[in-house]
Amino acid sequence: MSTTPTPAPHSTRNAPRRAFLQTCAIAGTGLFLANRLSAETELSAAANQSDIWTVFKTRRSVRKFKPDAVPEADLRRILDAARSAPTSGNQQPWKFLVIRDPVKIAALEAANVERLLGQSDPKNPLPEDEKKARETKIRNRLAGYFSAPVYIVILTDNQSTYPDYSHWDGPLAAGYLVLAARALGYGTVFVTDVIPDAITKKVLAIPDRYTRVCITPLGVPVAWPDTPEKKPLEDFIAWETI
Amino acid sequence: MSTTPTPAPHSTRNAPRRAFLQTCAIAGTGLFLANRLSAETELSAAANQSDIWTVFKTRRSVRKFKPDAVPEADLRRILDAARSAPTSGNQQPWKFLVIRDPVKIAALEAANVERLLGQSDPKNPLPEDEKKARETKIRNRLAGYFSAPVYIVILTDNQSTYPDYSHWDGPLAAGYLVLAARALGYGTVFVTDVIPDAITKKVLAIPDRYTRVCITPLGVPVAWPDTPEKKPLEDFIAWETI
Repeated sequence: MSTTPTPAPHSTRNAPRRAFLQTCAIAGTGLFLANRLSAETELSAAANQSDIWTVFKTRRSVRKFKPDAVPEADLRRILDAARSAPTSGNQQPWKFLVIRDPVKIAALEAANVERLLGQSDPKNPLPEDEKKARETKIRNRLAGYFSAPVYIVILTDNQSTYPDYSHWDGPLAAGYLVLAARALGYGTVFVTDVIPDAITKKVLAIPDRYTRVCITPLGVPVAWPDTPEKKPLEDFIAWETI
Repeated sequence: MSTTPTPAPHSTRNAPRRAFLQTCAIAGTGLFLANRLSAETELSAAANQSDIWTVFKTRRSVRKFKPDAVPEADLRRILDAARSAPTSGNQQPWKFLVIRDPVKIAALEAANVERLLGQSDPKNPLPEDEKKARETKIRNRLAGYFSAPVYIVILTDNQSTYPDYSHWDGPLAAGYLVLAARALGYGTVFVTDVIPDAITKKVLAIPDRYTRVCITPLGVPVAWPDTPEKKPLEDFIAWETI
């Protein structure tokens, strides 16, 4: 399914390095080790994904998660990175609402199933068995999105210093957040329509004072998806004139 | 002025590593080297800034640049990273207009000086000497912004697949871009008002088809500015309720 290298589980992240160090200690000469240093550094970077170029390249939109809990220290590290994004006039308008309560996550999912079921034509109600089949289909479609142990609602505060500039600041922090999560081996996906703004605000009782940028599940991916097909780099660059 | 470590110039980026390798080759035993590997890896990451956590921490808004040219390979690498940002329905709506022509950069600056001079009350024109003093002040204020060898106008295409979603996609790519630039030792600043949209579009003849996200100068900073004062991390996080 996936051609993207799956990062090592967190606890074994430094295993290749440890193994290498043991080999080195036995092997002996300084020259031997000096020749191998480059490969070791690259290997280490690939395993823990702290190499920014690897993170850019391997960050994916993930839609199916393992149930493994995310340590609070990792969440803080990710949010600390997110809030280091550029911000207009240093206003830092962000709030990160972190949801780990399974009851709340289930409520979000239920509200979404309801919404999609409600989209059938009320003048032509479906027969009971068709309705059931439709609900199953909807539940299957949404299941992956609601399989994560953590949800982060990225918000901006309308009472910030320059609220008219928050439409830039918000996604900037989101971009940082998804990269930081990837660096620690977690998947995310920038969700807008699949879990609509109105439902998020209602179910999670978010005051009008806040504008939602997006909501993202966060957790260890079941698998890292393949890279979607992309346009060639040259299509994006205009040298001097457009 | 600056407490942020200034990255090594590009050509000498791996110098500490090379020096270390030479020391290693002379020094001899494998065990000695194994004990030093950790420190070396960290040093190497700090020097070339490819460690993502270092990049998050040391990315700054830079407003004064050295005239050093930026190799095209570096620009391509930065833009390649930028276009790997999350994008709605894989639409990839971005265009990066790269300006290196000094004539165009000077025209942008002149148009901005004009704009700011024009803001004085036309009913009460300033005496000639005051006007001159005002112009000097304006030029000094803007000079840093226009000292970079490269400007990148980040645009989204209104004819993309889902243009209503580009207001997220645009800043997401900008966030990636400023990090990638920092990783290669370049400063950027997400500029909106200082070089207004209308002036950018007029001077650079950008068709209405494109929406500007921002314009950023890009170059080697004269110095990396200090971190602006930031709110504590806890102010940004809401656990379960807001």
